[in-house]
Amino acid sequence: MATDIVTMDKIVALCKRRGFIFPSSEIYGGVGSTYDYGHYGVLLKTNVKSEWWRAMLQQRDDVVAIDSAIIQSPRVWEASGHLAGFSDPLVQCLGECKRRWRLDHLQEAAVENGEDPALVRCPTCGGELSEPRAFNLMFETTVGPVRDAGATVYLRPETAQGIFINFKNVLQFARRKPPFGIAQVGKSFRNEITPGNFIFRTREFEQMEMEFFVPPDDAPRWFAHWLSERERWYHELGIRPDHLRLRAHDQDELSHYSSGTSDVEYLFPIGWSELEGIANRGEFDLNAHRTASGEKLEYMDPGTGERYTPHVIEPAAGADRATLAFLVDAYDEEEVEGDTRTVLRLHPRLAPVKVAVMPLLKKGGHPELAREIFADLRVRMQGEYDEGGSIGKRYRRQDEIGTPWGVTIDHQSIEDQTVTLRDRDSLEQVRIAIDDLAPELERRLKAPWQSPKLTA
Amino acid sequence: MATDIVTMDKIVALCKRRGFIFPSSEIYGGVGSTYDYGHYGVLLKTNVKSEWWRAMLQQRDDVVAIDSAIIQSPRVWEASGHLAGFSDPLVQCLGECKRRWRLDHLQEAAVENGEDPALVRCPTCGGELSEPRAFNLMFETTVGPVRDAGATVYLRPETAQGIFINFKNVLQFARRKPPFGIAQVGKSFRNEITPGNFIFRTREFEQMEMEFFVPPDDAPRWFAHWLSERERWYHELGIRPDHLRLRAHDQDELSHYSSGTSDVEYLFPIGWSELEGIANRGEFDLNAHRTASGEKLEYMDPGTGERYTPHVIEPAAGADRATLAFLVDAYDEEEVEGDTRTVLRLHPRLAPVKVAVMPLLKKGGHPELAREIFADLRVRMQGEYDEGGSIGKRYRRQDEIGTPWGVTIDHQSIEDQTVTLRDRDSLEQVRIAIDDLAPELERRLKAPWQSPKLTA
Repeated sequence: MATDIVTMDKIVALCKRRGFIFPSSEIYGGVGSTYDYGHYGVLLKTNVKSEWWRAMLQQRDDVVAIDSAIIQSPRVWEASGHLAGFSDPLVQCLGECKRRWRLDHLQEAAVENGEDPALVRCPTCGGELSEPRAFNLMFETTVGPVRDAGATVYLRPETAQGIFINFKNVLQFARRKPPFGIAQVGKSFRNEITPGNFIFRTREFEQMEMEFFVPPDDAPRWFAHWLSERERWYHELGIRPDHLRLRAHDQDELSHYSSGTSDVEYLFPIGWSELEGIANRGEFDLNAHRTASGEKLEYMDPGTGERYTPHVIEPAAGADRATLAFLVDAYDEEEVEGDTRTVLRLHPRLAPVKVAVMPLLKKGGHPELAREIFADLRVRMQGEYDEGGSIGKRYRRQDEIGTPWGVTIDHQSIEDQTVTLRDRDSLEQVRIAIDDLAPELERRLKAPWQSPKLTA
Repeated sequence: MATDIVTMDKIVALCKRRGFIFPSSEIYGGVGSTYDYGHYGVLLKTNVKSEWWRAMLQQRDDVVAIDSAIIQSPRVWEASGHLAGFSDPLVQCLGECKRRWRLDHLQEAAVENGEDPALVRCPTCGGELSEPRAFNLMFETTVGPVRDAGATVYLRPETAQGIFINFKNVLQFARRKPPFGIAQVGKSFRNEITPGNFIFRTREFEQMEMEFFVPPDDAPRWFAHWLSERERWYHELGIRPDHLRLRAHDQDELSHYSSGTSDVEYLFPIGWSELEGIANRGEFDLNAHRTASGEKLEYMDPGTGERYTPHVIEPAAGADRATLAFLVDAYDEEEVEGDTRTVLRLHPRLAPVKVAVMPLLKKGGHPELAREIFADLRVRMQGEYDEGGSIGKRYRRQDEIGTPWGVTIDHQSIEDQTVTLRDRDSLEQVRIAIDDLAPELERRLKAPWQSPKLTA
């Protein structure tokens, strides 16, 4: 593992200190591995999702959006195979601690440590483990007014199936023909046996999934296209290339329906881990739903009359994991004038706050002018007006939340209508005319960007 | 009811025809009163939510965002009173049809018809009704790896409690003091006995809630402030004032904790119905969670040392209901050259697509130039490139999804670098230089707008 990776503890501490993300229901002692996003966390994650939409939808002609229900017909999960097969091997410690574990995780760890995976024991107390049993990860609930007569339904464990069951609607109403994609962002729920590692694995999480339907012969080409597109997305948003890799699944890792899957992996504090999966799912899903529903889930070319079941390429990312990766990648500490400065070197488009407007003093007309400038900027971008504490303290605060630009209003501003514009990364300060400020910031916000950690 | 209200059937048909919103899990026969949002529906609802964030957060200094978990500690719902009291009176027909009803709804209908509410019978078969029983509306599920040993948890029936339990976090980490608000947008779930009326009442729905914490003495003033702010929001986004009203709850409608509640009501096809509730909740919620958790949920003024429990003003809106109201308000039909034109007169900022770029012909350099223009516009706003079908047919399609501006590229465009810019509402077409197009559209997008139905 590289030495320039921040620890998870530091990330968790910063997230709490600045109100990005903190344990949920904390006043009631929390509820295992569940987190609430605070102000800056909401803004950051919203930006991550917006950038995904921008790249996947707005900048393309061939993708449409969908937002399907979390509680769908239970027949969806029967057809997709989730009801029968979406389970993890659960073992319980038969020794003192009685803890529950995912057997596959324990075995993987054993292999990595050069131990015999057949001999794994409880990592906590060393006790023997029970025989594994299949534990279905779907949350179950009852819909309808009478419990015993109500229908059993499930919280979706992925957004993808909500796309497949609407394939026909999109063909028909959105007048699409392959190649085209359907994209969705939304919450999914998995009753994980061992959630953990902050927001890396939680029972409630947000996905950004896209199913791309293509003529069967074109599937390999589109698979390659999406691998490179998705890698590019992370690079463009500032993730350092040496902390990101594509890893093709081995034959024995592949789902039975997939002819190829690659993970986009990021070098998290817990090591290289999946950020996004890109799979060539073939015609598996449309076939499964065709068989179960009796609907013709195929495409007929109106020109040639040819009918076929499109193959599907799926880039499936996690919004929370992506948020975590951007936080980890951006985290930096440096010595400045004898002090340690903590700074989030986030891509400006991802930064929760784009600009902080700060009067140097709480008098001399500084706040009034600062307010005026702020009023003009805030209609263009998320900004923050901050007049509390020393200017150095305010800069530190903005550095910690990753605000790329700071504007300071001082006595000279009153005289010549200029302000100081400070850059978060270079710490460079330039004087700029107030009239030029908004266009300059809008220009910077649109400009290509790369992490200063790359050149450091 | 006014005569210029569109029927719900027409709205439902348009939503399906153009892929805004359609029944969920349709290939499996649907699942009662659950809907999926298609492409234009996602874009429209996203714009509704963005406008809410813009007004409630970005344009204010006193509100921060939060995104709390859907599955929280069950103690939250114990403390809030939802576990004991969040129920509707359920009655069942004892006659032939055995249908289930909400007794309060039947009684309200009886009163409206001048009948005795004590004598209500089954509206379907006229059968007698059972004694009412309290039916809790919270969906229940089990978290943790073993069903019988797992913890019973609930899907949140409102986002508000996720705000109250984080009051202390926001005080501490977001350095706020009353008056300040915490805003949240997200899904909530209620096991409604009788969902219905399209997306007006569904079991899974999206809320836009804000809890505004104020010094107790200031509560009446802030209550008035939020009533007028929220009304203004709908007006500014084009809702016709005569189709929107504030209705103060009668004394007997008020929740026991509320000293004042007003509904923002909209004249839906089903009559005047709640769009948003604005309540003065006093100190009820913070008190309840203080008692249950033992945490000091109060504010201490660092200047005066004075401690108090803030009172809460809550504007609670529904994103789906707002979307429905904007659709209903925008729907229009008019005769144009002997044809009936269906048009959604949506506020441009709400419109799913801002601009459609259309080559007049598929030859003569039109598509190439149109593509160039589209490439420039799409980075600025959601656009659509459309070259399929006659120009009239393309306009009709864009009218039906509410696209405010259409740009047509013809032979003159090739010669003099001008295009035709068509206005959805006035049908006015002007020629404009290609260089002026983007700034002109951006200017129009920022300009105040009012529904052309007002002046019609």
